[in-house]
Formats: sequence, structure tokens, C-alpha cells
Amino acid sequence: MAPKYILHYFDLTALGEPIRYLLSYGNINWEDNRYSAAQWETIKSTMPYGQMPVLHIDDKIFAQSSAISRYLAKRVGLSGKDDLENLQIDQAVDLYHDFRQKISEWYYDPIPESKAAKEVLLKEQVPFYLNKFQQIVKENKGFLVNGKLTWADIYFVAPLKYFKDLYGRDFLEGYPLLQELVKKVESTPAIAKYIAKRPVGDRWRDPDFKYTLKYHF
Amino acid sequence: MAPKYILHYFDLTALGEPIRYLLSYGNINWEDNRYSAAQWETIKSTMPYGQMPVLHIDDKIFAQSSAISRYLAKRVGLSGKDDLENLQIDQAVDLYHDFRQKISEWYYDPIPESKAAKEVLLKEQVPFYLNKFQQIVKENKGFLVNGKLTWADIYFVAPLKYFKDLYGRDFLEGYPLLQELVKKVESTPAIAKYIAKRPVGDRWRDPDFKYTLKYHF
Repeated sequence: MAPKYILHYFDLTALGEPIRYLLSYGNINWEDNRYSAAQWETIKSTMPYGQMPVLHIDDKIFAQSSAISRYLAKRVGLSGKDDLENLQIDQAVDLYHDFRQKISEWYYDPIPESKAAKEVLLKEQVPFYLNKFQQIVKENKGFLVNGKLTWADIYFVAPLKYFKDLYGRDFLEGYPLLQELVKKVESTPAIAKYIAKRPVGDRWRDPDFKYTLKYHF
Repeated sequence: MAPKYILHYFDLTALGEPIRYLLSYGNINWEDNRYSAAQWETIKSTMPYGQMPVLHIDDKIFAQSSAISRYLAKRVGLSGKDDLENLQIDQAVDLYHDFRQKISEWYYDPIPESKAAKEVLLKEQVPFYLNKFQQIVKENKGFLVNGKLTWADIYFVAPLKYFKDLYGRDFLEGYPLLQELVKKVESTPAIAKYIAKRPVGDRWRDPDFKYTLKYHF
């Protein structure tokens, strides 16, 4: 029997979104539990490490966005063909974490002086990383690894809009190869179908918001 | 022919140290290039993503500490037995990154007001994570995953002293299962042999410091 997948995450397209893309890509039946910030406070202590995304696989429960994504990628055929290709994928995913963490740490910094100092750095860091990614995509024929779709591409694209929204502008302007990568991933039929159905993803701050979507493929 | 491994990293036991432990554990011949902070400034632009650790595998070059560690773990028999076990390993490694990042972000924060705010949080965060890890080790019979040595244990132990030094005290006091885990990893014969031979790891700030060690097993 196919395993039962239940995702717990905010109504956001951040670190839980690659998991949604991968489950969709694999035409897997899954439950998409979306929580508001207020509801999160009430369920936080029930989550294994006080964080989301969390994925139930049958009766087991797992945390950590990239760990879960790597596992699902293997289920849906988006892992590398060998260990060296998987190393390239993992390298790209961790480079993306370095990149998006710079943006999040700046955005969520509550102390104005500290935030201003980070903003100065960010103006160099964002183009630094985007140039690296553009170079990787150029060397890898339109994808992050070896000229074909892998979960590294999914992981790059799925939460990208969220990080652009935090940053406050479309930081992909001037990076045509990265813009094309976004189009390639989002026009993949099963992912396009999910995107057409998914909620807007902006109600997570609403205290009485919570719903479960069931995707049946 | 066996691949040729050359590691480039600071003379530190931080994010490059799990790679050194794994190469040692596998009795692999490797070169250990250790750089001072001043030398790093001169070679930074030659590194693929402006960061270390970096590992040459024959003529290919890879960055990202956990990506490289995951790859080497498979070479030396410290991966999981199946995909679910690998998911547990990856989950533990990423939880460790969350933990050590809290310490590093506090330690390296240059703005006193911001650092003080982080210090308040850190007093809750450090025991939060250590309690989680202690619980995981309890449930997994003395290791992080399924009662046997995996690369998650190596990744946890190898840089631990570095993060304790940043924090300024031995945060494992009161966590006997984690102390035992450190002993188990560090008394593994091939790792104990490496530890006995390795440099002190505190000269990386010295501007004219650079050497290459060759480990032949």
C-alpha cells in the first residue's frame, strides 16, 4: 500500500513549499495542513523540534525541509543518477540555504542598527549568490545539475517568490537563466496543476485560519 | 585507482572537521591543507563559492560541509541502511546546523545591542536543542540514529569543541548521553589516531601560517 503523507506547515510558500512541489510532481496523494501564526503557537509543542515543516509518513514524523525533500526526491525520481551527482545537488541546495538565510536574517532582525548593517552587506551578497547560481545554470545547460531537472531546481524555485517578497523587489532581474529555470520548473505539468489549485498563501497571520487540503492525483 | 582527496580549510576544528573525521575513519589517504585567516583572504577568490571547506576529488572541486560529508559517509560505510534511515540522519544533521548557527550568530555579532538580545535567547535555545539531542540519543540506544554509528554522530561530535569554545563553557554538562556519544566517536580507532596526530587548531589567525599534512593510512 502507498504510504500516507501528511504535511504540516504555515500557509506560506517558504521552506515547506519544495515539499509540496515534490509531492505534486510525484502525483502522490497527500494532505496539506496549513496553519496560521496563532494556531502555530498552540501546536508548536506537539511538533518534534518545535518547528515546521513537518511530514508524517504513515505513523512516523520527520522535520527539516531539505532532509524531507531529499527523501521525497528519491521517491519521485528527482535524485541524482549517482553519488557524485547527488553531491552536486546537495551542494546547490546548501548554497541556496546560505543565500536565503542572508535575506531572512536581515528581514527578521528586530534591532534597527543591526538590520541597517546587514542591509549594507546584503547589497553585495544578493548579487554574489545570484551570479554564482547563474554561472552554475550556464555550466549545467539550463539546470542546477547536469542539464536535467533534479530536486535542486525544485528546491531553488519553490520558495523563491517568498524570499523575493521579503527582499522587496524581484532580485532575478538581470538573471535571465535563473528566470528561465523558474519557468521550466513551474510549467512542469504536475507542478503547474498544483500551483493553479494552491491557496494564495498570504493568510497565515490570520489567527483563526486553518485548513487541510487533500490533493488526489 | 583510488580517487585523490585534497581538503582546503582553516586550521580550525569547525565545519571542515567532520570531513577530516570521515576521511580518517575510512583510512583514506588525503591531503589536509590548513590556512590562516590572512592566507584565506588571498585564496578566497579561487574557491568556487568564496568559502571553505572545499574538497578536491581528483580534478573536481566541491564545497559545503554537509554535502561533502554525506558523500564521504557513503564511501566509508557510515550512511543509513535505507532511505528512511538516511532521512533520520539528515534530520539530525540539519537540527545540529540550527543549533550551531544560534551560537555562531551570537558569537560573531558585531553590534553589542544585537548580541545582548541574542544572548538572552541563547540561554533558552542551547538547553532546548541539547535536550532534544539527548532525547534522540536516548531513543536511539546511544547514537543519533538507530543504535549504531552513522555520519550524523561524526557530524555532531567533530566540530563540537569549537562551538563549546565559542560559547565559552562546556554546554554538555548535565547531558551524560551526549558526553558518552563524544567518547564513542573519538575513541573509534581510526579517528583516535587522527586526533592524536592533528595540529592544535588554534593558529589560524597567524598571518604566515599555512601547511599541508598528508595522512597515509
